Amino acid sequence: VKSFVDHNALLADPAVDAVVIASPPDTHAAITIDAANAGKHVFTEKPVDMTFEKIDAAIAAVERAGIKLQVGFNRRFDANFKAVHDAMVSGKVGQPLICHITSRDPIPPSLSNTRAVGGLFLDMTIHDFDMACYLTQSDVESVYAIAATMLEGCGEPDTAIVTLRMANGALVTIDNSHTTFGYDQRAELFGTLGMIATSNEKPHSALLTDASGSHAVLPWHFFIERYAESYRRELEAFVECIHRDLEPPVTTTDGRRAVAIAFAAQRSYDESRPVHLIEVAGQAT
Amino acid sequence: VKSFVDHNALLADPAVDAVVIASPPDTHAAITIDAANAGKHVFTEKPVDMTFEKIDAAIAAVERAGIKLQVGFNRRFDANFKAVHDAMVSGKVGQPLICHITSRDPIPPSLSNTRAVGGLFLDMTIHDFDMACYLTQSDVESVYAIAATMLEGCGEPDTAIVTLRMANGALVTIDNSHTTFGYDQRAELFGTLGMIATSNEKPHSALLTDASGSHAVLPWHFFIERYAESYRRELEAFVECIHRDLEPPVTTTDGRRAVAIAFAAQRSYDESRPVHLIEVAGQAT
Amino acid sequence: VKSFVDHNALLADPAVDAVVIASPPDTHAAITIDAANAGKHVFTEKPVDMTFEKIDAAIAAVERAGIKLQVGFNRRFDANFKAVHDAMVSGKVGQPLICHITSRDPIPPSLSNTRAVGGLFLDMTIHDFDMACYLTQSDVESVYAIAATMLEGCGEPDTAIVTLRMANGALVTIDNSHTTFGYDQRAELFGTLGMIATSNEKPHSALLTDASGSHAVLPWHFFIERYAESYRRELEAFVECIHRDLEPPVTTTDGRRAVAIAFAAQRSYDESRPVHLIEVAGQAT
Amino acid sequence: VKSFVDHNALLADPAVDAVVIASPPDTHAAITIDAANAGKHVFTEKPVDMTFEKIDAAIAAVERAGIKLQVGFNRRFDANFKAVHDAMVSGKVGQPLICHITSRDPIPPSLSNTRAVGGLFLDMTIHDFDMACYLTQSDVESVYAIAATMLEGCGEPDTAIVTLRMANGALVTIDNSHTTFGYDQRAELFGTLGMIATSNEKPHSALLTDASGSHAVLPWHFFIERYAESYRRELEAFVECIHRDLEPPVTTTDGRRAVAIAFAAQRSYDESRPVHLIEVAGQAT
Repeated sequence: VKSFVDHNALLADPAVDAVVIASPPDTHAAITIDAANAGKHVFTEKPVDMTFEKIDAAIAAVERAGIKLQVGFNRRFDANFKAVHDAMVSGKVGQPLICHITSRDPIPPSLSNTRAVGGLFLDMTIHDFDMACYLTQSDVESVYAIAATMLEGCGEPDTAIVTLRMANGALVTIDNSHTTFGYDQRAELFGTLGMIATSNEKPHSALLTDASGSHAVLPWHFFIERYAESYRRELEAFVECIHRDLEPPVTTTDGRRAVAIAFAAQRSYDESRPVHLIEVAGQAT
Repeated sequence: VKSFVDHNALLADPAVDAVVIASPPDTHAAITIDAANAGKHVFTEKPVDMTFEKIDAAIAAVERAGIKLQVGFNRRFDANFKAVHDAMVSGKVGQPLICHITSRDPIPPSLSNTRAVGGLFLDMTIHDFDMACYLTQSDVESVYAIAATMLEGCGEPDTAIVTLRMANGALVTIDNSHTTFGYDQRAELFGTLGMIATSNEKPHSALLTDASGSHAVLPWHFFIERYAESYRRELEAFVECIHRDLEPPVTTTDGRRAVAIAFAAQRSYDESRPVHLIEVAGQAT
Repeated sequence: VKSFVDHNALLADPAVDAVVIASPPDTHAAITIDAANAGKHVFTEKPVDMTFEKIDAAIAAVERAGIKLQVGFNRRFDANFKAVHDAMVSGKVGQPLICHITSRDPIPPSLSNTRAVGGLFLDMTIHDFDMACYLTQSDVESVYAIAATMLEGCGEPDTAIVTLRMANGALVTIDNSHTTFGYDQRAELFGTLGMIATSNEKPHSALLTDASGSHAVLPWHFFIERYAESYRRELEAFVECIHRDLEPPVTTTDGRRAVAIAFAAQRSYDESRPVHLIEVAGQAT
Repeated sequence: VKSFVDHNALLADPAVDAVVIASPPDTHAAITIDAANAGKHVFTEKPVDMTFEKIDAAIAAVERAGIKLQVGFNRRFDANFKAVHDAMVSGKVGQPLICHITSRDPIPPSLSNTRAVGGLFLDMTIHDFDMACYLTQSDVESVYAIAATMLEGCGEPDTAIVTLRMANGALVTIDNSHTTFGYDQRAELFGTLGMIATSNEKPHSALLTDASGSHAVLPWHFFIERYAESYRRELEAFVECIHRDLEPPVTTTDGRRAVAIAFAAQRSYDESRPVHLIEVAGQAT
């Protein structure tokens, strides 16, 4: 194991074929461009970056270099969400009509931190925006966001419901907040033929029944425990797409789209009105 | 058992203390006024009526006559929704932040019928509007509705998501549609201390596991089966509020409020924008 | 509604077609015989009586009179157990291999009472013996019972496991005890093709998740609540079998068989050895 | 990584501190003795061996050498069974009264194989015998086994119910068979204060509801998937007990006890009567 202070030193190492970028969000594009120019494949954490300008520059560099770029939407590799996706793709739920995505974490937001990472929508909900597209197999047409601040002294919203109208007609809700009971990560997809819904994963299934009721253990506390397997799988998929020269399972298009939805949600919240994705996505093209 | 062709003949019977109105929606207010004038207590099915003018005339007659009027929001008497309400009132979920209400029925809408009864929001969602207020213990501040038409040849929307911002800060989603799998009636309330969620009631709990998976029976097919007990309980409560001279558990205020939210949802859908309840409720006061 | 101090006065009433016997167990046969002689159909609570001699006399009287006799094994009419039975009969579980019946009630036994009613096996487990035959669709070949006394000062066993080898090869366990958490009434049937299992019925499905875990309400407290519907259905079935001149859904053969299994379980417990049903059933034929 | 054809060559390697024995059952004791004589700590798969004579010789060698010996009862390290055990030890279920252990696997037994490994009780049920002691925190007093042969052409029993009376008064059932639906591994412990029960672990939680019912995925197929984590944890515990000089979490006493219960179950089945453990355990002391 070698370590480097400067990512360019790492990129200069001919033994390196591919890199994982887990730096602050507003450095992702710059490092991606450096990696692309060095001919290294890139796995970057979400978001691709924080402006369309930087994202599009990164995408251009990736295409020019002919490298693979995979974005870290790890939840696609969670067995629960994948099962919903697979039921959708196989036709078991029919045409998708309604999708509910619940995504709450156990950590109250720190004000400075959420601002630094782009606010609730770009930092946290972005995973759910990708999930909405992944589960309904559609792009987003319009976005409406309402939010509230539940924590004293935090000026940023920390609780939100985002409603999406998808291009294929499906209607989606995403809710985000912070819990006292661990990581709350669920999805329900309802269509013309049926519905598929996931439950939270728990450390064990034992149910205790005593004179006061039946009691089950809390869900896994946070992403490290809940999504451990998905992190392993997304990297395996990244390695496989390099080895077999396949398209990455999460593309730059997916990465840019999720940022666009986050921008639309932010504008919807700021202006208290539904926002068509084209209003926002049009900014950068 | 006696039967009457004209409700006024029934109202003239001195042996009658109270009446149940289950006639078409746009006749509720007129019959309520006749009953009030005859000094009979009234239990009316929802909605109280289809315009504020008629509703307010009915309320005035009820107050003038000093009779009891209870509106048929039977779901408040369902043990599942009552348990959510009770957890909220007792403080177990803390301050309410997010509430999801799912209300789907197994019967595809007939176009003529839904128009005659005021459309999806006034006919079907009105139960959920009352439920939103009942579960979060708050009035509504603003409404945003998106909807889609899933059935061929039906011009009216039959699938909708309505988002409510409650006066106490809670954010609510309601979704309505039509299922292939029976009556889908659930609620989830999430707050600063915890979450409480219901599941669908089923005819039995037997779970069959065979080589293809684990299989459970469908939920109760429709309202007659699912809400049988709640219909019994709401009428018991009506009788009790007469006998003991109590305020009815569902008041004219509740009945009028739910209609106002339905009007706001309809306007939001028609105008593709969030609507403040005051825009609509102001019409009639 | 008329009431009688003496059952013979009731039986003399020509307006009476059928009677329900819910008197102490050791009076069932005598009253059944009186009713049969009066030409009245009989629904009797379990057990048919407490000795083979009296039971066989009652059966003979019933056959002589050509009346219907139905025994109160109400659990066959519970939707949960019926679903297990129906899956068995329809072939969904294949050949039955293993069946677990759990039957625990919330009331600690009173010593005098359990002795008066024939002890744990004849009073309480008798329902489970009928259930074992009903669910596996077989007679019993041999019985092994172990038991324990959990309550101070009660000389009678109050906690037991009875193991049955059925004539068709299925192996059954029945467990009885007394709970702190209400009525615990479940069955699981496992066969060559699959398994079907029931859960306890509860007053509502609401699940509260807070910082300490997820919490569900207790099951229904006791038989009045849990089996209310089954009591209604068994009497409907009794009336129907009279009206349509059908064989009762629970016959005298079923009633006598369950008593025989109880006797075998008692002997197994007393002698600490497996007992073949023929050892006991042979007593009376 | 080095490999050896002869275990004695491995034992001669001074770099080796400890060994894992996963050879055929009737070689465990001999290899354990060789390892003990070489001063290597031993982790051996169950059973310790197939006769008391060999087991006791191995135990003597282990004690003489002062090495650690841990037996591979991995299920103690499964989070589900551990939660039941922990609830028992912490007093949450009160005094244990009834315990049901279900242990069914998806692989039909091959006749030659089950005979070679000692039959159903010594090969398969032995895990459940250890679990019965672990969950009720007690030794066994007496054993009663009934069994059946469900598979054509297989002379050995493949479906069994073993009933145990524990020294502390708890009554236990164990059932074994072979399923069409994967690995069925559950436990329920009922006591004077409450009950704790586990469910099968599944690859994901997604529940599909369509017009035919609600459908969940099968449990993990077999031990490799279901118990993967427990295998990791038992070896971690083994390494830790060496490093910190602790008693192994599964001792030679545990290993010998489970074999004794298996012998008693076999005798009970062969002789169709309950067998006191002392009848069997007395053989070898």
